[in-house]
Amino acid sequence: MNYKMMGRFIAQIVAVEAVFMIPALAISLGYGEWAAVKAFAITLGIMLCLSGIFYALCRRAEKLFGAREGLACVALSWMVMSLLGALPFVLCGQVSNYIDALFEIISGFTTTGASVISNVEGLYKGILYWRSFSHWIGGMGVLVFLLAILPGGGGSGFTMHLLRAESPGPDVGKLVPKMRQTASILYVIYIALTILNVIFLLFGKMHWLNALCTAFGTAGTGGFGVFNDSLGNVSPYIQNVTTVFMFLFGVNFSCYYLLLLGKLRSVFKDEELRLYVGLVVASILAIVLNIRPLYATLEETVRHAAFQVSSIMTTTGYTTTDYDLWPAFSKAILLMLMMVGACAGSTGGGLKCIRVLLLFKALRRNIRQILNPRKVLVVRSNDKVVDEKVLANTNAYFAAYVIILVVCTLILSLDGFNLETNLSATIATFNNIGPGMAAVGPTCNFAAYSTLSKLTMSLAMLAGRLEIFPILILFSRGTWRRK
Amino acid sequence: MNYKMMGRFIAQIVAVEAVFMIPALAISLGYGEWAAVKAFAITLGIMLCLSGIFYALCRRAEKLFGAREGLACVALSWMVMSLLGALPFVLCGQVSNYIDALFEIISGFTTTGASVISNVEGLYKGILYWRSFSHWIGGMGVLVFLLAILPGGGGSGFTMHLLRAESPGPDVGKLVPKMRQTASILYVIYIALTILNVIFLLFGKMHWLNALCTAFGTAGTGGFGVFNDSLGNVSPYIQNVTTVFMFLFGVNFSCYYLLLLGKLRSVFKDEELRLYVGLVVASILAIVLNIRPLYATLEETVRHAAFQVSSIMTTTGYTTTDYDLWPAFSKAILLMLMMVGACAGSTGGGLKCIRVLLLFKALRRNIRQILNPRKVLVVRSNDKVVDEKVLANTNAYFAAYVIILVVCTLILSLDGFNLETNLSATIATFNNIGPGMAAVGPTCNFAAYSTLSKLTMSLAMLAGRLEIFPILILFSRGTWRRK
Repeated sequence: MNYKMMGRFIAQIVAVEAVFMIPALAISLGYGEWAAVKAFAITLGIMLCLSGIFYALCRRAEKLFGAREGLACVALSWMVMSLLGALPFVLCGQVSNYIDALFEIISGFTTTGASVISNVEGLYKGILYWRSFSHWIGGMGVLVFLLAILPGGGGSGFTMHLLRAESPGPDVGKLVPKMRQTASILYVIYIALTILNVIFLLFGKMHWLNALCTAFGTAGTGGFGVFNDSLGNVSPYIQNVTTVFMFLFGVNFSCYYLLLLGKLRSVFKDEELRLYVGLVVASILAIVLNIRPLYATLEETVRHAAFQVSSIMTTTGYTTTDYDLWPAFSKAILLMLMMVGACAGSTGGGLKCIRVLLLFKALRRNIRQILNPRKVLVVRSNDKVVDEKVLANTNAYFAAYVIILVVCTLILSLDGFNLETNLSATIATFNNIGPGMAAVGPTCNFAAYSTLSKLTMSLAMLAGRLEIFPILILFSRGTWRRK
Repeated sequence: MNYKMMGRFIAQIVAVEAVFMIPALAISLGYGEWAAVKAFAITLGIMLCLSGIFYALCRRAEKLFGAREGLACVALSWMVMSLLGALPFVLCGQVSNYIDALFEIISGFTTTGASVISNVEGLYKGILYWRSFSHWIGGMGVLVFLLAILPGGGGSGFTMHLLRAESPGPDVGKLVPKMRQTASILYVIYIALTILNVIFLLFGKMHWLNALCTAFGTAGTGGFGVFNDSLGNVSPYIQNVTTVFMFLFGVNFSCYYLLLLGKLRSVFKDEELRLYVGLVVASILAIVLNIRPLYATLEETVRHAAFQVSSIMTTTGYTTTDYDLWPAFSKAILLMLMMVGACAGSTGGGLKCIRVLLLFKALRRNIRQILNPRKVLVVRSNDKVVDEKVLANTNAYFAAYVIILVVCTLILSLDGFNLETNLSATIATFNNIGPGMAAVGPTCNFAAYSTLSKLTMSLAMLAGRLEIFPILILFSRGTWRRK
């Protein structure tokens, strides 16, 4: 294990986080929120000290960097970022204990949006901004950002492993041969779409700070709202804009790159995109039929159904209505969408459409193999043969996914809430959605859970965002052995 | 597809079923239950006619038989057996419609034990016997029985495919080189253990018919009771005897064969057995700690915890107490055990311990592979290298398992019950347990579900008992193509 390289990397991450915190400090200054200003200033001080110490200690690092360093580095960076990012919440006094603050910021960085704060409207504007901005940072990944701006970095092997560890999906999509350029392209698309979203929200006469925060939550598919009832009381226009943008941020970003290159055919033929669009449309239809009697007009029914489906499938977690009051069938569909999640290479969470597709294809192959024991059968995706290693990885991922789901639900059950609460809380945090059902439904929050449960869910959120393996590898003996 | 061979096989199966029904007819005769006598007699007549017609039409069949014929044959035999076995319930008038009767007998044959009959004590004795005996037939498999008694059969390829399709577990365990002998040994052990169980129950002063029926339900890990409250009102002795025997029938039968051969070492080193015993012990301990305040004495607490754990893990489904009133943690443990299930090669259902073990091992291998990308790593079980095909099959099985679980829950949700009810109903039927939780808990039954849901659950029970692939293959185009 190349500890020095990791140390230097974490120093850089902390420095970037400090830079990202400055706008929050500025906003608090502008609004004269002195408690928040103090909190941000102290945190910034701690960050700069830590970053300096780490950098000084680990400056002379060899540039040797393998898969395990890449994965461990990603997991540790995210943990350090969270430990530091939680400080302002406690220091300004608006969150009473550090575990709750940690839960909140991990929920932010992992773009979950599960909250322990009930009165969001009472937060300092700077804190509100920091909370929402954490979604935006976490959405595309701070390491990917670092890759985009780092001069040279640690060689292509190093950057490849990092990008692979932080980017969602079973196979990392190189848009262009150079990793650094790929990272830049991703961020340019990300920033452009976010700005577009803000403009649309401003057209709807939203206050600029609210528009910014809402767009951050949409872009990162996070879901921290700026109002106590999420987006229940804003205009239908803003709700519809958000529906569309949530959907857009759940699409694999490489599709946008292909669009820019004019390769429309390959975008429309993309199997993952087709599954994603198909599931969204089918779910909206099924839910509209199911909840029609609950709303006055068809427009309202479709608006709420489309919003919730888009929000849940992209694992954002904004709500316009309390879907916990919907019939069991609609709730079951939402629960299924929570697990399927968005496309790989988007900012969304969950299993990802491509994995679901690969699992189905591998299953079909297996059945054909039973019928034709002597044939050699391959799995194809977008007309290309899928590498058996990717399939093995997808299977292992799925097994780990279900195991974590079961274990988390077991631990949460210790608190005595009912099954629906515990299962949906696990699914909602592990898949980075936010609100669950029953006692953690859209109108409630996660504050009532015990410290053990909050820490479990925090780990689940990290595992979900980083796609399990980086976190599991931290617990593997082999990782910490010196070569 | 070799239709004639399949037809001849189904003719034989129906004949065997008719023979199995004779004791039920005799009991109804003895008790003077004339409605039931008539129902059994009519059913027997239909069976003999059908069997004769099929045999006459398909007598001259080639002995060519591949995997797809084996699998399709198993699935179709079980369906035909169920369609016919359901008749007495309706004909005697004690079940009002055929769909309910079908649900009941499929629940019997698949050793599920989920019921739509609320007043079990009011059933005719013959019907009660037939209902419980269906567990015993389904437990070890009627095709395995046929293999054991068939003279010659269709060659070893044929018998192998059948045994593989009906026997639970990822890999069929040949005890001895000849399949027919293996089947005989399995049935001898099965019969011996069942007789032992009856003797123990008779010692507890149980009525002979009740003892027989209870033993059938225990041996097949079925769970149809003879009293309205399952085993809640019998003596602690009978409860404890049942706890032990349920546990014994959940062990891989090849362990008993090894015991008979004196190979104690390999039994005690068996990894699946260790996981099974470990999970049972750990679950009992955790539940005892969790439910201690609910019962007066420690003895009572341990007795109920041990009984329910043994019953649920072996997927039997007998109950001594309403576990639906237990705290969320204990219920979550039971729900997890429902999915894990018993050992492969036992009469129990669920995923099977060996599959869970293989999933964990494959996951660990995958993590090691990430850390050491260039090494070739294998998965070992009981010190032997596990074939990659078995692992691929296990992964496909797991994917199919979760997909079916999600789809069934979705369909059941249409009836409007809550998530806990629908999810536990799916888990309880698909894993062949019987009672679920909430509205399908131990004190309730499945009668309130719609016809669509009952048919869905019936198919899920069959898929669970036959380990999914035989049923999935019926829906595959490739199966029905002529070579």
